Amino acid sequence: MIRVAVVGATGFTGAEIARLLIKHPEVEITSLSTRPEDVQDIRKLIPELPKDSGLEIEEYNFAKVSKSCDVVFLALPHTVSLNYAEKFLKKGKIVIDLSADFRLKNVKTYETWYKKKHNKKELLKKAVYGLPELNRIMIKETDLIANPGCYPTSAVLALKPLLESNLIDPSSLIVDSKSGVSGAGRKIVPSLLFTAVNEDFKAYKLNAHQHMPEIKQVLSEIARHDVNVTFVPHLLPLERGILSTVYATKRKNIKPKQILEAFTASYKDEPFVRFLGSGVYPSLKDVQRTNFCDIGIWTEAKSDTVIVVSAIDNLLKGASGQAVQNMNIRCSFPETMGLI
Amino acid sequence: MIRVAVVGATGFTGAEIARLLIKHPEVEITSLSTRPEDVQDIRKLIPELPKDSGLEIEEYNFAKVSKSCDVVFLALPHTVSLNYAEKFLKKGKIVIDLSADFRLKNVKTYETWYKKKHNKKELLKKAVYGLPELNRIMIKETDLIANPGCYPTSAVLALKPLLESNLIDPSSLIVDSKSGVSGAGRKIVPSLLFTAVNEDFKAYKLNAHQHMPEIKQVLSEIARHDVNVTFVPHLLPLERGILSTVYATKRKNIKPKQILEAFTASYKDEPFVRFLGSGVYPSLKDVQRTNFCDIGIWTEAKSDTVIVVSAIDNLLKGASGQAVQNMNIRCSFPETMGLI
Amino acid sequence: MIRVAVVGATGFTGAEIARLLIKHPEVEITSLSTRPEDVQDIRKLIPELPKDSGLEIEEYNFAKVSKSCDVVFLALPHTVSLNYAEKFLKKGKIVIDLSADFRLKNVKTYETWYKKKHNKKELLKKAVYGLPELNRIMIKETDLIANPGCYPTSAVLALKPLLESNLIDPSSLIVDSKSGVSGAGRKIVPSLLFTAVNEDFKAYKLNAHQHMPEIKQVLSEIARHDVNVTFVPHLLPLERGILSTVYATKRKNIKPKQILEAFTASYKDEPFVRFLGSGVYPSLKDVQRTNFCDIGIWTEAKSDTVIVVSAIDNLLKGASGQAVQNMNIRCSFPETMGLI
Amino acid sequence: MIRVAVVGATGFTGAEIARLLIKHPEVEITSLSTRPEDVQDIRKLIPELPKDSGLEIEEYNFAKVSKSCDVVFLALPHTVSLNYAEKFLKKGKIVIDLSADFRLKNVKTYETWYKKKHNKKELLKKAVYGLPELNRIMIKETDLIANPGCYPTSAVLALKPLLESNLIDPSSLIVDSKSGVSGAGRKIVPSLLFTAVNEDFKAYKLNAHQHMPEIKQVLSEIARHDVNVTFVPHLLPLERGILSTVYATKRKNIKPKQILEAFTASYKDEPFVRFLGSGVYPSLKDVQRTNFCDIGIWTEAKSDTVIVVSAIDNLLKGASGQAVQNMNIRCSFPETMGLI
Repeated sequence: MIRVAVVGATGFTGAEIARLLIKHPEVEITSLSTRPEDVQDIRKLIPELPKDSGLEIEEYNFAKVSKSCDVVFLALPHTVSLNYAEKFLKKGKIVIDLSADFRLKNVKTYETWYKKKHNKKELLKKAVYGLPELNRIMIKETDLIANPGCYPTSAVLALKPLLESNLIDPSSLIVDSKSGVSGAGRKIVPSLLFTAVNEDFKAYKLNAHQHMPEIKQVLSEIARHDVNVTFVPHLLPLERGILSTVYATKRKNIKPKQILEAFTASYKDEPFVRFLGSGVYPSLKDVQRTNFCDIGIWTEAKSDTVIVVSAIDNLLKGASGQAVQNMNIRCSFPETMGLI
Repeated sequence: MIRVAVVGATGFTGAEIARLLIKHPEVEITSLSTRPEDVQDIRKLIPELPKDSGLEIEEYNFAKVSKSCDVVFLALPHTVSLNYAEKFLKKGKIVIDLSADFRLKNVKTYETWYKKKHNKKELLKKAVYGLPELNRIMIKETDLIANPGCYPTSAVLALKPLLESNLIDPSSLIVDSKSGVSGAGRKIVPSLLFTAVNEDFKAYKLNAHQHMPEIKQVLSEIARHDVNVTFVPHLLPLERGILSTVYATKRKNIKPKQILEAFTASYKDEPFVRFLGSGVYPSLKDVQRTNFCDIGIWTEAKSDTVIVVSAIDNLLKGASGQAVQNMNIRCSFPETMGLI
Repeated sequence: MIRVAVVGATGFTGAEIARLLIKHPEVEITSLSTRPEDVQDIRKLIPELPKDSGLEIEEYNFAKVSKSCDVVFLALPHTVSLNYAEKFLKKGKIVIDLSADFRLKNVKTYETWYKKKHNKKELLKKAVYGLPELNRIMIKETDLIANPGCYPTSAVLALKPLLESNLIDPSSLIVDSKSGVSGAGRKIVPSLLFTAVNEDFKAYKLNAHQHMPEIKQVLSEIARHDVNVTFVPHLLPLERGILSTVYATKRKNIKPKQILEAFTASYKDEPFVRFLGSGVYPSLKDVQRTNFCDIGIWTEAKSDTVIVVSAIDNLLKGASGQAVQNMNIRCSFPETMGLI
Repeated sequence: MIRVAVVGATGFTGAEIARLLIKHPEVEITSLSTRPEDVQDIRKLIPELPKDSGLEIEEYNFAKVSKSCDVVFLALPHTVSLNYAEKFLKKGKIVIDLSADFRLKNVKTYETWYKKKHNKKELLKKAVYGLPELNRIMIKETDLIANPGCYPTSAVLALKPLLESNLIDPSSLIVDSKSGVSGAGRKIVPSLLFTAVNEDFKAYKLNAHQHMPEIKQVLSEIARHDVNVTFVPHLLPLERGILSTVYATKRKNIKPKQILEAFTASYKDEPFVRFLGSGVYPSLKDVQRTNFCDIGIWTEAKSDTVIVVSAIDNLLKGASGQAVQNMNIRCSFPETMGLI
C-alpha cells in the first residue's frame, strides 16, 4: 500500500484521479485538497462514493499533505505547478504533475505559449514525459512525471508507429482534433454555457492551441528531426472524449502492409492501445470512461495519403487515467491495476 | 408602420423580439440597445440577419431611444424595469415590459419574492397582464403591458378552461413543469455550464420559484377565489421549451365530455392555442420556434383526476412571441402578424 | 466463486450485468448468450473490456448455458422469460429475471397489461419481488427473483417510508416520472431516433404504462390496502436515469418532523439509498453509473402536500445493478460487492 | 405567383422545402405528396403551421401533381428521381431535383457509387448543377436543376476562391467534414438511434462517401484539371449543420493578402456567402436555420498550409434552402425571397 494525495481534487482531472484511486487496491488516499473557495461536498464530485467512505475535500495545506503521502498528484492550473512540484520533491515525494509545466523541454517555448516565466529549469531536466508507450523505462526511475496533455496523447499515439518506422513525410502532418467540453475544465465563461455549446460545433485556436508545441516536440523526438504539424482543435457538444483524424503523406513506395505492420508491432503488447486495423475506425463511445486509446487507419496502395483516427477519453487516457498508469509503472504495480 | 425599440436586446428574450420584428411588415426597428458591456456584433445574436441589414446593437441612451420610437419593449432583469417603464410612459410611449415588475398586483408579494422595494404602485394599477387569451380587450387599451412569465403562461393556459367552467377543485392544483435552459437567460454561473446541464435533469426551487405567486394570482382571478398551487419546476438538458404536466381533481359528477367541451370552447378561436383533444399529448418539438401553446388532456370517467399537458416555446409564447402578439393587439395589427 | 450466466447479454440490461460481473470478485462469468441474429463483438457492448478478456457473446443454447452456471440472469423481453425461467429452475439454478413476467401477483392483471397468457402460475407463487429494501429476507431464500421495473423502483422507494408509517393518504398519489432513453431498450423505431428525441421532451402513456399495475401492487402491499396512483412517464433527451417527482397528501396533523424521521429511519442502514433530507433534491448526475437511489423531500407545516424527489440510474438500481444486489443477497456475498 | 409541388414531402428535405415555400410570397403550394405509407399529419412535420393552413400531405399521384404545378421539387431517394424527373419534364414542368441522380456528369461514376444503372443520359446533358455561386446564369435557363449535395456545397464553397485564382496545389486537398444527424435523413437504423449517437462522435466512410466523386468533379471543373481530394465525413451528435475544415497547400510565393482578396472578391456580392476574414471562424450556430454559408480562413506567411473553415445548415444551404434559391433564380424572383 502506498499513501497518495491529490492536490486540486475539485477540478475535473483531480476528481477523476480520486475516483480511480478509491478502487485501487494498492492505494490509500490520504488527502484530497483544494483552494479554500473550492472546498465542497465530495459526493457532488464523485457520485458513486459509498455512504461511509470517510473521504472529504479539505483545504490545501502543504505541511499536512506532505506529511501524509508518498505520491502526490498535482491537478493544478498551468504555471501553478512549478512551485508546488519543487516543494514536494524536496520532501522526497513522487510527483505526478498533470499541468503543462514540465512537459516542454524548451523554456522559451513554454514562456511563449503559457505567458509565464519558467523558474524551475533544473527540475525540467529531471522531468520525464509520462507517455508510457514512449517512455516506460524512464518513468520507472523518475520522481517527477510530466503527464501529457490530452490532445498530444491522441496525436502522438496516432503517429508514433508511422514516424518510428519512417513511413511518412514528417514535413506535412495534419491533426484535426475534436474534443468534448470537459477538456476545458470547469471554467465559468460564456463560451462554455450549455446554451452556447449545445447543438453547436466549431473550430478554435487554429494552429494556436497551447498543446501545439507539445505535439511538435514529442513527434520531433520520435522522428529524430523537426516535424511540421498543422493542428486544428474543435469543440464537440458532448462531455468526454477526443477523436483525432490525422493526415500524413506516405514516403515513396511504402505499401499498406508496411503501415499495418508498424501499428501492429507498436501496439500489440500495449495494454491500453487497441489497434483496430485498416478500414475499422473508433468512435468516442468505444473509449469513454476507459483508459484505452483506440486506433484505426485508412491506407490504400493507390493513394499517397494515410489517415489515422485515434480516440481517447480526454479525462482518462488524456489525463487522470494516464496519471494513474504512470503511478503504477513508477511504483511497480501491474500497469493496468485500478484501470480495468 | 410603427417605430419600435428594444431595450435589453442582447439577452435571449430581447434578441428574440428583434428577430421577430425584422420580419414584421408593419414595424420599423429604430433601436436595439443594451448596457455598454454587452454591446456586440448583432450577427452573433441573430444569425439569420442578411448581410446588409443595417441593424446594430448600440449602447442604451434614454433620450435617443425615446425620441426614435412609438413602442418600446423592455427586456430587462427583474426590478430594473420599474424606472425604465415610467420614463417611457411619461414620454407617451407604449411599453411592453417582459420583466415581472408589473405582473403582481400585490406589492408586498412582489417585494417578498423579488427582494426589492416596489416604488411604482400607481403604474401597477394601469398595467395589464398581457395574456391575450385572458385580457385581449384590456390589452388594446393600455400603454403598459406586463408580459407574462414563461411558467405562468404554460400553467394558466392549461388550467383556464377548467377553472372558468368550475370543473375542478381549485384547492389542490399541481403544476409539474420542465423547462429548457434558455429560460434561465444568459447568466454565467456554474450550474448552467454545459458540463453541469448536459445529460442531467433535476427539480429546483420546489414551491419556491418566483413565478409561483404569479401563477397563483392569475389562476385565482380566473377561479374568482383563492386557488392552492403546488409548483415544481425542473431543468431539462435542451435549449427551448416548457412542458407542464398539470394535475387537478375533478368536482363531483363532472364528465369527460364536459372537460373536453370546456377546452374546445375556450380555444377554438384562439390563433395560438392548439387543443389536441383527449389522449393526444404535445411534445416540445411541436412548439419550438413557434408562438403556439399546444394542449392535450387525459380524463376518464372512472378517475377523479384530470391531467393537462401543455407545451410552449419559453422564448416565444413564453416571452418574446407573446410580447409581439401583445403589440399586434395593442396596435390593431392582425394578431398573428409576424408570428406565423 | 460462483458460476454465472447472462441470457440476453446484448440488450442494454444484459450488457450492463456483464459489465458489473466482470469486476465482481466472487463471480466467474461462464456464458454470455443471445439470439443468433444479435451475436456480436463484445467490445462494442462493453468498451472497457481489457484486450485479453477471453469473454465473448455466443448463441444461446440451453443445455450449454445450463451446464455451465449456478446462477442465471434472464435479461429477456417481457413474456419470453416465462418458459426460460422454468427450465433453469428445474435444473436447480438460481434465476434472477429482469422481465416483468414474475412481478405481478395477479395473473389477470399481467395478461391485461402484457397481452399474453401467463402459463406459469405455480412459479409466480415462489417468485420474490426483488426490491431489497422491502424483501431482503425473502430474497435470501428463493430461487426465483423477479427483479423490479425501473419506474416502480423509483416510485416505491420514494413512497415506502410515508406509507409504512401511515403518514399520507394513499388514495391520491401522483407519480410524475422522467426517464432517459435507455429505458426503452434498443428498439429500432422512429420515435427513438436521435432526430426524434434530441432537444425534445414529452409525456407518454399517461396512466397507461405497463409499470403502473406494478407500482400499484407494491405500494398497496406496503400500505396494506389498495392505493390509488396517477402515473405519468416522460421521455428525457439523455441516456440514463429516472427522476420521479412524487406528490402526496399528508394525513391530518402530520408534522414535517415525522416525515423526516420516517425517511431517516427507513434508509439509514440501506447501503444503496441516500436520503438527502428536506430542501435538498437529487439530480440524475448524482446517481448515473451508480446503484444508488437518492431521495430528497419538500414538506412544510403549512402545506398539506408532501413532495418526494427520487433519482436512480434506470440501468443500475432500476435494473442490472439491483439484479446484482439481489444476487449478492441470495448468495450471501456482501450486499455492495461489485457495486461500489 | 407560381404553382409549386413537392414530391417526397415527408422526408427532412421535402418538409423543409414546404416550410420555406409557405412563407414565400410568390409561391402557391399546390401539392405536398409522398408514398402511401408515409402519409401523415402535416403538423408533425411543420410545427409552425397555422391552425387553418389548409395544407395536407397526400398520396403521390403523377397526373394530379403534374396538372397542378409549374415547378416541382423532387425530394426523393437517390436513383428514384431518374424516372420521376423525365415524366415531369415531358409535361413542361421545371424540375428541381434534390437527389444525386443528375449531379454526376460521368454515368460510370454514378453507377459505381450509387449501384444503379443510369438510364437517362440524355437528361444528364441538360441538367445544370445548382450551385448558384458557380452556375447562376445556366440555372436561369434550364428546366432540370440538379441541387448539390450537402457535403459538396460546404467543400466547394470553401475551395472555389482558391482554385479559381490558382492559389493552391490541387493535388492534395483534404476535406475534414462534420455533419449533424439530419444529414442521414429519416432512416430507421440502429446507428441513428438516440442511444447510439448521443455523446458519441466518429468518422465514417473515409474516402468512400458517395459525395466524394461529386466534390471531385465540381472542384476539377473549377480548377480546370483533375484535383485530388481526401474526404473524411464525421457524425456529430446534433441535429443540423455541416462544418468542414479544409486543408490545402499554397502554391509558391502566394501571400496571405492574395488569399484574402480571392475570398473577398468571390463572395462580396453573394447574398448567401458570408466571408468572415482571416482568424475568424464560423460555428454551426451562426448558420443553423439559415441559408448562409459562413467561411473563415487561417493563413500565415510562414506556413505553406491554408485552412478554410466553412459552415452551412445541411438542410438549408445544403439542400432545401439552396433548392428554393435555385427556384428564385430560375423564376426570376429576387434571389433571397422567402429565404431571409
